[in-house]
Amino acid sequence: MTPAFPDGLMAAFDAYEQALNDDDLATMDQLFAPGPRTLRGDRGGLLVGHDQISAFRRVRGGAPARDLAEVRVHVIDDNAAVVTAVTAPRRGGHGLQSQLWRRVNGSWVIVAAHVSPAPTTFDATVWRIVGAPLVAGAPHGPLAGETVAVKDLFEVAGYQVGAGVPAYLAEQPAATRHADAVARLLDAGATVRGIAHTDQFAYSLAGDNPHYGTPPNAAVPAAVPGGSTSGPATAVALGDASIGLGTDTAGSIRVPASYQGLWGLRSTHGAVPTAGLVALAPDFDTVGLLTRDPHTLVRATAALVDDAGVAVPDDVVGLDDVGFDLAAMLDPFRTHQGFQAWQLHGDWIRAHPDALRGSAAARFEAASRITPAEDDAARRALAAARELIDARLGTAVLSLPSASSPAPRLWATQTEVDATRQATLQLTCVAAISGRPVVCAPANSTPDGPIGRSYIGPRGSDLALVRWAAQRDAGNRRA
Amino acid sequence: MTPAFPDGLMAAFDAYEQALNDDDLATMDQLFAPGPRTLRGDRGGLLVGHDQISAFRRVRGGAPARDLAEVRVHVIDDNAAVVTAVTAPRRGGHGLQSQLWRRVNGSWVIVAAHVSPAPTTFDATVWRIVGAPLVAGAPHGPLAGETVAVKDLFEVAGYQVGAGVPAYLAEQPAATRHADAVARLLDAGATVRGIAHTDQFAYSLAGDNPHYGTPPNAAVPAAVPGGSTSGPATAVALGDASIGLGTDTAGSIRVPASYQGLWGLRSTHGAVPTAGLVALAPDFDTVGLLTRDPHTLVRATAALVDDAGVAVPDDVVGLDDVGFDLAAMLDPFRTHQGFQAWQLHGDWIRAHPDALRGSAAARFEAASRITPAEDDAARRALAAARELIDARLGTAVLSLPSASSPAPRLWATQTEVDATRQATLQLTCVAAISGRPVVCAPANSTPDGPIGRSYIGPRGSDLALVRWAAQRDAGNRRA
Repeated sequence: MTPAFPDGLMAAFDAYEQALNDDDLATMDQLFAPGPRTLRGDRGGLLVGHDQISAFRRVRGGAPARDLAEVRVHVIDDNAAVVTAVTAPRRGGHGLQSQLWRRVNGSWVIVAAHVSPAPTTFDATVWRIVGAPLVAGAPHGPLAGETVAVKDLFEVAGYQVGAGVPAYLAEQPAATRHADAVARLLDAGATVRGIAHTDQFAYSLAGDNPHYGTPPNAAVPAAVPGGSTSGPATAVALGDASIGLGTDTAGSIRVPASYQGLWGLRSTHGAVPTAGLVALAPDFDTVGLLTRDPHTLVRATAALVDDAGVAVPDDVVGLDDVGFDLAAMLDPFRTHQGFQAWQLHGDWIRAHPDALRGSAAARFEAASRITPAEDDAARRALAAARELIDARLGTAVLSLPSASSPAPRLWATQTEVDATRQATLQLTCVAAISGRPVVCAPANSTPDGPIGRSYIGPRGSDLALVRWAAQRDAGNRRA
Repeated sequence: MTPAFPDGLMAAFDAYEQALNDDDLATMDQLFAPGPRTLRGDRGGLLVGHDQISAFRRVRGGAPARDLAEVRVHVIDDNAAVVTAVTAPRRGGHGLQSQLWRRVNGSWVIVAAHVSPAPTTFDATVWRIVGAPLVAGAPHGPLAGETVAVKDLFEVAGYQVGAGVPAYLAEQPAATRHADAVARLLDAGATVRGIAHTDQFAYSLAGDNPHYGTPPNAAVPAAVPGGSTSGPATAVALGDASIGLGTDTAGSIRVPASYQGLWGLRSTHGAVPTAGLVALAPDFDTVGLLTRDPHTLVRATAALVDDAGVAVPDDVVGLDDVGFDLAAMLDPFRTHQGFQAWQLHGDWIRAHPDALRGSAAARFEAASRITPAEDDAARRALAAARELIDARLGTAVLSLPSASSPAPRLWATQTEVDATRQATLQLTCVAAISGRPVVCAPANSTPDGPIGRSYIGPRGSDLALVRWAAQRDAGNRRA
């Protein structure tokens, strides 16, 4: 016998369902309990508190259209019940939703909700093409069993390069060979799992590609994944690839590593050939790696990087020790980066005025206005900055945060995102200017998500630096 | 202020978590409330009642290893609480779990649980390779905007054919052209979304490929998807493709359509060229389609099938009207199917004795023992059966269930699965023997899942039959 439902419960349930269908934010806000303990979770993670839940709904843009296939009510008492509903999204499949309803001051409100949308078999925000495998690697080798998510800037034989821009993709022929970096990993026995998305021409640190959608952040619910190596980062963080192959010009490995709690390597400038790679700013462009654990990073680095055999002394300094004027360094970096990016892509962008969208479009537009004289001044300032960095660091390792904050939530304003970008670039430009390698380790878990730690080593120390950071991490875990 | 937790609640929670880690079925059974109202749901659907939940756990083979990242308790009263936990699976990402605990006769038990594993970006049980798109179609055409999941029996230029058998895949060169059926859909403007899994050499109706795993059933929790067009069926049912391109020798379109509530077409034998297709039993092999709605099926059929323009009179008969001895028809069908299958694949299978697994291996083994004399007798019986079918049906449409039951659950015994297969083949062999086309429509929703309805029409009536079934369905919905 089903017990009778408490008065008003099903009316409140129906009202919530209607509000969801109508994207009626006010009613949904009203039907969720106020206060910091209200929960709303899905496969992306758990939102805590009415404010977060409300902010999430404002940026979601409505839930997918659906019907209810089955509703089951577990009555606890006259003022509490759990309502479980099987949902039938119009696009196919079934979802599941559980809500704990309580009557507070006479009104029914949800105090905890758990939502499972219908499963999907392919996340096109993460991958452009993916397979098991997409390209098989050598039958034996130190990376046998590893799977690589290749950022969509590298040539994979038989496939086009898309660079995060559909109009660019549409004009590319299929590559006839692998990019050198891809070939090195394949030769070492890794397989290519797939081609994963990048921000448009890799000119962003957020990962919110407006053409393909924003890949989920595996560590922080409703947050950007970090970019521009966004697709590989999410694929690795979720366990759907074990190695992300990406690039880092201004932080495009380090920021997603930081935002999603991954290990990362920005290699010494020039230590990995860039043949078969769509460039952004060649004076700063480097090839990099993302992994979930340091041991895989060591093995992948050994396969990828022309190691100069430079050692890493156990001499670690912090930003306070070196006294860099980061703001002063950032300015010429951004100028020269933008100048080179426009030199490379400006003609194409002018010929395709609608191809780029959002913040990357704005950045290229700004870059288009940089004069040769401004770039000359920037180059001179960068040379001086590089000398200063080398003089102050010598062979020491500089330890600093990988990003200025945890990953911004999807509801952050453009002003907030821009401020985050600016603050993070001050941290990431030191290695970009000096061409030094950086290893990122997962470090601080803040209540708002992880922030990684970056270790900048001497040029040519890549493999030693990764090994050193792995040992340091093991030591920290024992301590 | 967090209220104090009721006595014993967290001990019970911890005990359950430990039992989950240990795959300790007895303890998990004990910590779930007995009776028919206990719930356990995930993205695969909702299991109802202690028995189903217990059966599910017995076949799951343990939950993926995980840690708890965050636990939040909402206390309702001294005897009821909801415990929400963020889980950290070892493979990456975060999951979410909500449990409604109640104290019954002094013991804490779970009465409703909702589990979200960490999201995955790629389901390798469904797809071998998938992209957005994998192969672009013609820029315009009646199927523009449609996405096709191609069963891994058809050649897609640039890719190998795997036929559900990894050892076979490993020896295949990349195809140099598209199979005719693939080319027709591409020419009509559809894009190829990906290559989706099949049962081994398509010789099964269940969809439980032991090499690649069992794709989920989008309609029935913890049930087989139906085969052998298993991957395309799940991809279409979940909305990740709009058209499934498959084959039907003995029911390989009709059974997954039935099990997952889809529309399907088995085309007239010979009405779609089989160039570029791995055959199973050429006297019965046909190309077929799966869709979520009848309108897409009409348009896809128009693009795919050489339509002979045969009309469909509104003359529908049932199995009772025709009085076929289905059991007597099935026997020669299975004999000749097996004989042809072994003729085609026997040499390869003998040369690769470990390549096949499970029930398909057993079926080929049985097929290897069919003698030419037995096959001759079967052919004669089939010719007679075909004459009988044609005489009794004429131009009428035969309406019958698409399968003998809803999709078997994953915990069904091999004996149960074999009995289901046998009973379903009695229904599906009528069209196979007569070469007549069949349209499957979603029909009865039983408490254990959907069973489709098959309409067998005159040879050459494919397009008319699909249109007729779509109109009939629309009429039924209005009625």
